[in-house]
Amino acid sequence: MISSQELSDLTECSAAQIRKDLAYFGQFGRPGCGYPVEDLKRELKKILGVDKDWDVALVGVGNMGSALLAYKGFKGQGFNIKHAFDNDTRKIGKVKQGIRIRDIEDLKKVIKSSKIGMAIVTVPQEAAREIIDRLVSSGIKAILNFAPARPKVPKGVELLNIDLSMELERLTYFLKRIRA
Amino acid sequence: MISSQELSDLTECSAAQIRKDLAYFGQFGRPGCGYPVEDLKRELKKILGVDKDWDVALVGVGNMGSALLAYKGFKGQGFNIKHAFDNDTRKIGKVKQGIRIRDIEDLKKVIKSSKIGMAIVTVPQEAAREIIDRLVSSGIKAILNFAPARPKVPKGVELLNIDLSMELERLTYFLKRIRA
Repeated sequence: MISSQELSDLTECSAAQIRKDLAYFGQFGRPGCGYPVEDLKRELKKILGVDKDWDVALVGVGNMGSALLAYKGFKGQGFNIKHAFDNDTRKIGKVKQGIRIRDIEDLKKVIKSSKIGMAIVTVPQEAAREIIDRLVSSGIKAILNFAPARPKVPKGVELLNIDLSMELERLTYFLKRIRA
Repeated sequence: MISSQELSDLTECSAAQIRKDLAYFGQFGRPGCGYPVEDLKRELKKILGVDKDWDVALVGVGNMGSALLAYKGFKGQGFNIKHAFDNDTRKIGKVKQGIRIRDIEDLKKVIKSSKIGMAIVTVPQEAAREIIDRLVSSGIKAILNFAPARPKVPKGVELLNIDLSMELERLTYFLKRIRA
């Protein structure tokens, strides 16, 4: 068993918040006793959708795309980059991290036939909007975008923008205060 | 002038929240009139600490480190990767994106003499703890960590962990609901 207080110590969230958040998804624990660890882990994985593996498409095999192809954290969490695409004829056909890089022109055909729902976009800023439109029209429902652009997507599609400068800005805000 | 409602449309935050957040930092706008755009921009940059350039050290010039050295979003926001370090003798001395890669053994000396306060960590998971300890003892006060590890840092040092699997998990949560 694990108590909400122990979970709080591990996660730096308040015990009350943890109890409230978990209660939102149903009855997990027993008041005064805590949560059975194995049940809790299984339920959390189910809630997050990581109780099974997910295939992912990656578009743009430049520096960032190559880094993500090699990122060990994905596989451990059940994320499997199944297809990678680029428009550079010098890259198409090459194999990186066991993945053969495909022609971006085959994007729609490959994604439709493989029924992939999730994509990572690591193309240059100026190409991001067009690529995201193409992914959406190919049936992709969830996109993690590393290009410094925030294109709109239709309802029913989830777009998560990773802005690395914004992460650094969170640090400058902190630095500024301690130096002030 | 720009109104909190116009800012709300641009940012997808509520107008009330924007007014509240800005008021926290002082008196910016005039009730009923909105905010003078140029003043607001200047004040926001000052608050965020991005009214000046920041030098950053990068440790670990593998796939992710190389991607970040090439990341155009940093320079545009005033972040300047000034030094890069690695422990691989085949990389040390090479120049990438205009930065000469230095020996990790020189980390403390270089950081102390250049008075850099911010570092990005892109080393393998097993090296992260040691590198972060070395950065802290060299005087680094703010760290952006891409290694899938969450080491503790002393009070007065800010550590921001970027967990890319966690970003994908936010998407699976969404996908699971629309497919259910």
